[in-house]
Amino acid sequence: MSRIAYVNGRYLPLADAGVHIEERGMQFADAVYEVIAVVDGQLADFDAHMDRLAYSLRQVRIDNAPGATALGVAMRQTIARNRIKWGLLYLQIGRGVAKRDHAFPDKVHASVVMTCRPYSYAALAQKMRDGVAVATMPDERWARPDIKSTSLLPNVLAKQTARDEGAFEAWMVDEDGFVTEGSSTTAWIVTDGETLVTRPLSRAILPGITRAIAEELARTDGLIVEERAFTVDEARAAKEAFLTSTSGGPVPVVEIDGQTVGNGMPGLITGRLAALYRVHLASFTKDPDASLKVLSGE
Amino acid sequence: MSRIAYVNGRYLPLADAGVHIEERGMQFADAVYEVIAVVDGQLADFDAHMDRLAYSLRQVRIDNAPGATALGVAMRQTIARNRIKWGLLYLQIGRGVAKRDHAFPDKVHASVVMTCRPYSYAALAQKMRDGVAVATMPDERWARPDIKSTSLLPNVLAKQTARDEGAFEAWMVDEDGFVTEGSSTTAWIVTDGETLVTRPLSRAILPGITRAIAEELARTDGLIVEERAFTVDEARAAKEAFLTSTSGGPVPVVEIDGQTVGNGMPGLITGRLAALYRVHLASFTKDPDASLKVLSGE
Repeated sequence: MSRIAYVNGRYLPLADAGVHIEERGMQFADAVYEVIAVVDGQLADFDAHMDRLAYSLRQVRIDNAPGATALGVAMRQTIARNRIKWGLLYLQIGRGVAKRDHAFPDKVHASVVMTCRPYSYAALAQKMRDGVAVATMPDERWARPDIKSTSLLPNVLAKQTARDEGAFEAWMVDEDGFVTEGSSTTAWIVTDGETLVTRPLSRAILPGITRAIAEELARTDGLIVEERAFTVDEARAAKEAFLTSTSGGPVPVVEIDGQTVGNGMPGLITGRLAALYRVHLASFTKDPDASLKVLSGE
Repeated sequence: MSRIAYVNGRYLPLADAGVHIEERGMQFADAVYEVIAVVDGQLADFDAHMDRLAYSLRQVRIDNAPGATALGVAMRQTIARNRIKWGLLYLQIGRGVAKRDHAFPDKVHASVVMTCRPYSYAALAQKMRDGVAVATMPDERWARPDIKSTSLLPNVLAKQTARDEGAFEAWMVDEDGFVTEGSSTTAWIVTDGETLVTRPLSRAILPGITRAIAEELARTDGLIVEERAFTVDEARAAKEAFLTSTSGGPVPVVEIDGQTVGNGMPGLITGRLAALYRVHLASFTKDPDASLKVLSGE
């Protein structure tokens, strides 16, 4: 089956799916996006993603994008036409096509693009067993990473630098030595006292949907979550470290800049939080018990 | 005549010119660009633009883009097919099309897009007579504006904020209160002692081609150019202020944040430098005398 993409109201074979070369997302990174988990064909945390999308759109002043209801219809069509049960839905909204000029064009239609891909929970299960390594480096992004824009070149370069160093993810560090977040994930540590620590929301980090869910799941489970910035040294000396994202949920970090975290094995609290997150994802499906097995990589 | 764009080796009607939705320039701002002046059908300062392009490509590690010779051939074809005598050539090179993932894809062809548009020197002449206003605001860009990448959302928002305030350009200010540069132009002032001042090259600003040319032209003309950062207060109190860019050359700034600069009229030194720059541009044409008239907006 050939894959299908949604482009401005049309469902096209992915191979033929294009945007105009003067789309402002293409020329100016003048676009915002979301990535949503598809679990057993259902959109997980749809409302939270739509709220964040609305925030991003407001911040960049794109005021004529379709609303959440219309987007939801198109997303479900895209999922169905691709026959995706377990996957990721990518949505990008740009300011539209206009003669190149930095300032906002006068009259323009926001552009909407969606793709949907299968996601391998078996591959994720491997990461859960082994943990992943992160490499730290200066945070070189612009002042507004809280906006989920496609202005991602610094993230790309950070991620690639991490990969070159044999690490899975980059943890970016601010001028004061505190970790901001990963290039596409939120950064967490667990202290000796078993307190979960993650950086408070601000303009410096993306308000991660999975970050918020993990925090709520942890608190409901009786864990203490402290929102504060932590240094690279504190992370290296932490009992556990992990990262969260829509694509993977909580994933254990076992190595930072080549030094093992804790005993070098995925942490127990991270594992527990990941299990709770799988239950959370399964709650969006029609058969949570069967879904839990898929989400566990079985 | 319908306009023609160059897209990956093909010359297409502009209306039909597209790139794939998974072009990394579209999803990650993983692309660099140049804008080159076309004067009487000729490319101005081609070598300097190609050198800067090579620098940008090296910095973002796109290593398989066509070389300057091949690009030059395609540029001249694009100019000819659009029958542009006086215009701007836009060139964008992206890392290519790949399944979405922040890290560099394994095998990918760099993508090359070009457009060419007429440019109105009559409209520029009006700006030369009236001068333009600038509005200052914090520089919110990433750490590497020296790379001419399409990661331009902060520039877009800055430019639009300036326009909302009735200004033509935004002058962005670093954390220490010094002007970095405009959202798409280089910032200059002229002191009471008639010294031209512009910020030294660093990672904080784009190495403007017109900046370098203006500096050389000024020095050859016997003027003193000092490369140092200046504050907004110093700019407001300056004898003259101006901005430079490929599209406009030196353009007088007569107002900063609503306050007039000098006597509120375009400065004499700016005017002289603009005249020298027109002579420089005309030198690329086959009939410099006739070209000078066009470049003067006559």
